[in-house]
Amino acid sequence: MTSRLQDEGGSLVNRAIQAVRDHIREHDLKVGDTLPGEGSFSMQLGVSRAVMREAFGALAALGLIDVANGRRAKVGAIDGSVIGASLDHAVSTEQISVAEVWDVRRTVEVRIAMLAAERRTDAQADRIMALAHAMAQAVDDLPRITGNDIALHEAIADAAGNALFAQIVRSFAPLMQAAVPQAWRTRTADEQRQTMLDRHMDLARAILARDPDAATAAMEAHFDESIGQQLLAKEKG
Amino acid sequence: MTSRLQDEGGSLVNRAIQAVRDHIREHDLKVGDTLPGEGSFSMQLGVSRAVMREAFGALAALGLIDVANGRRAKVGAIDGSVIGASLDHAVSTEQISVAEVWDVRRTVEVRIAMLAAERRTDAQADRIMALAHAMAQAVDDLPRITGNDIALHEAIADAAGNALFAQIVRSFAPLMQAAVPQAWRTRTADEQRQTMLDRHMDLARAILARDPDAATAAMEAHFDESIGQQLLAKEKG
Repeated sequence: MTSRLQDEGGSLVNRAIQAVRDHIREHDLKVGDTLPGEGSFSMQLGVSRAVMREAFGALAALGLIDVANGRRAKVGAIDGSVIGASLDHAVSTEQISVAEVWDVRRTVEVRIAMLAAERRTDAQADRIMALAHAMAQAVDDLPRITGNDIALHEAIADAAGNALFAQIVRSFAPLMQAAVPQAWRTRTADEQRQTMLDRHMDLARAILARDPDAATAAMEAHFDESIGQQLLAKEKG
Repeated sequence: MTSRLQDEGGSLVNRAIQAVRDHIREHDLKVGDTLPGEGSFSMQLGVSRAVMREAFGALAALGLIDVANGRRAKVGAIDGSVIGASLDHAVSTEQISVAEVWDVRRTVEVRIAMLAAERRTDAQADRIMALAHAMAQAVDDLPRITGNDIALHEAIADAAGNALFAQIVRSFAPLMQAAVPQAWRTRTADEQRQTMLDRHMDLARAILARDPDAATAAMEAHFDESIGQQLLAKEKG
């Protein structure tokens, strides 16, 4: 196969991808709405079924359509995992450093803490407090601490009432799965571990108290106190 | 095809995707490094070539590998377009509102402005000033204003010296392509347009002057003054 043919194949697939995206936009489709089949697009665009199958595959990988279980393709819901895969890849191939991710996380999560304190519902505040308590009680169980830590940050992001902030925080989960246990292992003194648990509890209490300034300060303290240990863990690992 | 078979096919593809990602991680591959071919993975994992082809297609769609021009697959460089496609889809299907994107942009771009003022090189400051001037001179040419506006925000993000912030700003480009002209059209008075151009010039000058506080204030003013018009444009559009 020559590169010219491949290029043409590539641009046909790209045209087919764009046609499906245009269809979603022009018909004002929403999550879960059914799309025409591959055959229908293939006829309409005058491209082969193989090209259309490749386009549907790419759209499914990007989460723009959902083709699970052999049903007709539906408009997909974003879930943070696409951004998460991109981020995880970029860090593992050293295109982005852990320190860079940390600065982005601090920036968005400080804003999220403030919004959560302003907007949280009572049910959201209960969930945040329950996760902070669960984290404190799991002190010698690293997988449970990690799970509760990630869930706590996601619950706070949900309480911020901004779907994009929530997806961005969810995209950090694969990195946190690796980083939280690493950082925790560098906290050898009981005192250091207690400080981290206290920070999460302060944060949860500030959101419960609807105190945006305290929530901002607690999230800043959380990041500033853990960043040194985090980067140290990375260098050792 | 039954849903059971499809599920099995789906999980085989997911296993194949994970195997390629594990290969990249375990062999410590970097951007541009060559991967084994589909045939090699297919033998090693005991899956069909069709499954492997689908896995490579998904990885290429996510930008994790680069299979352009029929050459052997290489490790891919992130370029913001994957996150951009996800964001554009989420907004067009109303999973995320324009106001939500705006809050995220403001949050990350205010931090970026501060970092750019601290870290910009002379060449980066020159480029930022040149784009601010070009934007001011393009006052009646909407496509040029839009292009310069997007390029200016990307140049500031580059000067911040954090590759993840730069990719996040690049992911906003598809939304800005639509939003900048809409917002500009709502600025019917010459005075309003001049204010927006002045804000961009203030921002560029603060970064040139290595003044983080002024850069932060200019970026905040830029967002606060344009948000009302932005959301108004969305409602009209």
